[in-house]
Amino acid sequence: MRIFLDCIPCFVRQALDAARLATDDMQIHEQVLREVLALAKDLDMSQSPPVIGQKIHRLIRELVEIEDPYRDIKKRFNNAALKLYPKMRQHIIESEEPLATAIRLAIAGNIIDFGVNSRLHESELEKTISDCLAAEFFLQLDAFRRAANEAEKILYIADNAGEIIFDRLLIERLPIEKVTVVVKGSPVINDATMEDAVLAGLHKIVEVIDNGSDAPGTILETCSQVFVDRFKEADLVIAKGQGNYETLSDVDKNMFFVLKAKCPVIARDLGCEVGEMIFRESRTFRNTVDLMKEAE
Amino acid sequence: MRIFLDCIPCFVRQALDAARLATDDMQIHEQVLREVLALAKDLDMSQSPPVIGQKIHRLIRELVEIEDPYRDIKKRFNNAALKLYPKMRQHIIESEEPLATAIRLAIAGNIIDFGVNSRLHESELEKTISDCLAAEFFLQLDAFRRAANEAEKILYIADNAGEIIFDRLLIERLPIEKVTVVVKGSPVINDATMEDAVLAGLHKIVEVIDNGSDAPGTILETCSQVFVDRFKEADLVIAKGQGNYETLSDVDKNMFFVLKAKCPVIARDLGCEVGEMIFRESRTFRNTVDLMKEAE
Repeated sequence: MRIFLDCIPCFVRQALDAARLATDDMQIHEQVLREVLALAKDLDMSQSPPVIGQKIHRLIRELVEIEDPYRDIKKRFNNAALKLYPKMRQHIIESEEPLATAIRLAIAGNIIDFGVNSRLHESELEKTISDCLAAEFFLQLDAFRRAANEAEKILYIADNAGEIIFDRLLIERLPIEKVTVVVKGSPVINDATMEDAVLAGLHKIVEVIDNGSDAPGTILETCSQVFVDRFKEADLVIAKGQGNYETLSDVDKNMFFVLKAKCPVIARDLGCEVGEMIFRESRTFRNTVDLMKEAE
Repeated sequence: MRIFLDCIPCFVRQALDAARLATDDMQIHEQVLREVLALAKDLDMSQSPPVIGQKIHRLIRELVEIEDPYRDIKKRFNNAALKLYPKMRQHIIESEEPLATAIRLAIAGNIIDFGVNSRLHESELEKTISDCLAAEFFLQLDAFRRAANEAEKILYIADNAGEIIFDRLLIERLPIEKVTVVVKGSPVINDATMEDAVLAGLHKIVEVIDNGSDAPGTILETCSQVFVDRFKEADLVIAKGQGNYETLSDVDKNMFFVLKAKCPVIARDLGCEVGEMIFRESRTFRNTVDLMKEAE
């Protein structure tokens, strides 16, 4: 997905929010703002939004001289999610359709996105969980189940810290021996890195790799060759969250996008309402039925 | 009031909204956005927010090649307000404290502000009126009444089209022979110009002058000498709306600011909540009691 004009004021606001979260130094807030305005002024709008997100957050880390301004926030939401995990897991096991419930909960976890909302509080998680469990939701469960069963290599591209514990609930419902979980190569916003995957205990149940990048999404050009090879090899990719949708929506690959549409630009691109839960195959997704038809 | 960092993303968003309102040409939307980003990047933050508002809207009018992109909107809201006028006037006459009711209604009219909200619909007016009639409201009615009675020259600096018909309700309650109403010298956003004052019938009951400026507020340095002289001569100024508060709050003058605080930056500056009704004297306001004390 490319950058839309509506993304520009939002980038500027996000940069200010992020600068304030990283430091109390108002001179740095102003400096960040002015540099982001200069960046935005000459922006190549054909790029995906996380390309500028990556630049903004590199700039903030440099100016603040802190490697990971979101470290505390990530800890707080990891802890909050870990507390909720046993109850959510029990709820899945007892539900009529455990896979569907796990998907709903994984999407609920996508609310933990400090790119979109830097004022989120842990207390909002339980409300989001009940909303996501109750909401109307168009879910192509059979297509997904078939794709997961037939795939040999499944890549689950995680999104944020805290959220990754919600992801674990869905990962546990997949044919787990085929799954590799992907986290960011280094900190950006509250995106999950290896530390968060380990805290979620994912390394004990699946392989976890990082993508070698500090972009708040999956910009293949800035990822490590190791990751890019694994991406190419995978026959099913589950891409979690807005940043991964924004960066991968135009990539030709068998993918499912799993997210909560939290901004009007993405909602328009997806043809849905803001706040809606999304579980959708990529444009070039080819399920077995298609392939069988072709073979006829 | 100076420009705060939070104003910057808001300027960018306002510029995009205004560009879209003025034309469907997406190339112009992008051009406006890029030029506003360039402006904002080197902004002198000690200025008041309407200084950049003035530049943004000049830019849009130039690029769109339309002298008044808000002409239709102003007409629509003038008509809507004219329809409501007789009922509101009756309500004032029948109320226990007509002056207070007229002030509440004048503030209700301040919702018609296309700088802050470019998506306002006429249907929202009646709701705002009932809200403003019912809301808690700290009103220094005696101080104001005394100031109005003792003043020889009262300047009522109007804000927006449509709103100016609500202002008429308050102006009718003032010692009308002393009142001069001020409108903008030429179109900017939906600010009232002479055309709107005439449509409100104000020219029949008071003197109406324009300030010779196209700033969305009262930037004395860009106003005509005629207006500046009248401003100096006035012994009471009633400044309506956010733009006039932003540009006049630091001016040494006997003033009352009358507005609805619609943005968080102004609300913080005023020490109130967003949405609150404000009727407040200027910092250097000197009422008769003060002067008498000094004379003692």
